[in-house]
Formats: sequence, C-alpha cells, structure tokens
Amino acid sequence: MSENSLPESHRDLLEAPIPVTIATVGSGGHPQLTAIWVVLDGGDVVTSLTETRQKLKNLRARPQATVFVIDPNNPFRTLEVRGDVTIEPDPDLVTLVRVLGAYGTELESFQGPLEDRVTVTLRPTRVVALG
Amino acid sequence: MSENSLPESHRDLLEAPIPVTIATVGSGGHPQLTAIWVVLDGGDVVTSLTETRQKLKNLRARPQATVFVIDPNNPFRTLEVRGDVTIEPDPDLVTLVRVLGAYGTELESFQGPLEDRVTVTLRPTRVVALG
Repeated sequence: MSENSLPESHRDLLEAPIPVTIATVGSGGHPQLTAIWVVLDGGDVVTSLTETRQKLKNLRARPQATVFVIDPNNPFRTLEVRGDVTIEPDPDLVTLVRVLGAYGTELESFQGPLEDRVTVTLRPTRVVALG
Repeated sequence: MSENSLPESHRDLLEAPIPVTIATVGSGGHPQLTAIWVVLDGGDVVTSLTETRQKLKNLRARPQATVFVIDPNNPFRTLEVRGDVTIEPDPDLVTLVRVLGAYGTELESFQGPLEDRVTVTLRPTRVVALG
C-alpha cells in the first residue's frame, strides 16, 4: 500500500513507545540513519532534535527525510514515511517534553542536551505500509 | 564510536537473524528505506535483491547506501554502516541461498521472486556503533 498519508492500519507503529529510524542525506550523498523518538501531530511525524546534531545539519541543507519502523512483533510489517521537513525553535522544550512523555520519560530524568532544541516536523509525501 | 570498518562489539547485529534497514536515495532526493536480510562477507555487508526493485534502481543511479540496525534487546544499542555499493548478477542464486540460510529459510519455501537476482555488496566507508 502506498499513499501520501498515514494509514490507520499502521499508525500504531508511530504511536507505540518504540524507537523509529530516521534517514537524512549527508553532503557526501550517503544516507545517515539514527534511532529517534517521535510523536504524531495529526498526519505529521514530530520529533525533537538539537542544532548540533549532524542529522539536523543535513536537514538544514536538504529538508527531506524518511522515517521507518519495523514492527517488533512482526518483521514483515513495516511503515515507511517519506516527507518534507520543517524546523522550528523549541526554546521552552514543549516538543521535547511531549516526545519524552510518549516514551514514559520525564524531563527531569532525561540525560540528553536541553540547549538549542528544535521541533522537526515531517509532512508525509509518500507512505509505504507493508504487512 | 566511528570508524570505517565493522567493530567486533556490534557485528552480532548483522549476524543475528533479524531484519536490518537499508536506505538508498531516490531520484527526488528522499531516502528510501526498507527491511532486508543480510550476511557478512568479511567486512562487507551482502544482500540479494532483484533488478525490478526501486531500491536497486536507486543504487544503479547512485551506488551509496546505509544499513542500520537497532538491537531488539536494547533500543539504545545501534549500528549504522554507510558504504559504497557494487552490484553483480547472481544467476545461480548463490547469494540468495546464502542470505535465506542465515535467516533459517530454504529456497524451496521462499515466496519472493527468483528472476533477475543480483548480489549487492556494501563496502563500509563509515561505521557508527552506539551503546
């Protein structure tokens, strides 16, 4: 199944507290992949990053990314969300707190950096749901 | 840890029978991500694809890919392997049989296409092992 919005059948893969993979493209042309935490905002996929991370530098240069999840209970069930990215400052950590909360973590116990936080929003342009 | 070869500490993530994520870059610039099965050939990551798959078309146009695994038992332990790709015909299905075997599957029970099989070899140029 391929469309440009998140299918109800696979939304659970982005709502469950499991890490998802995000891919950006580096200046040398190679995809860069890392594990991140996300929340859904209607039909968009939202995460919290910091300005200093390589993947954010990649997104500043090329605002295209893809999020991918393999169902931990069924390796043949996957969701790929390609989309275009917008980046906004998150000085009050609103997005960070929201994302952490979705994974059962409070800001007080978060070990990562709090400075230079931004909200990254991926608006789907193509979605492939398998399995 | 970042280097250009597979660290012993994380080789298990590519040797275990768990699906890994591969990213290529499409003509429109978005990463394309799918789940694949792989084997190691020394320091290279090897898989079997068919000519008709979009990811192979992407690799023909831009022979750069990245393989990524999240440890199913520890979501903070990940392995990212960026590399350059070579593609060779696999008319006798040698690579396909080898990859299937690593995941406990025999050719006779394999449901996928057998025609136009190629061996895709990813030679690492940058490896990031976390956790």
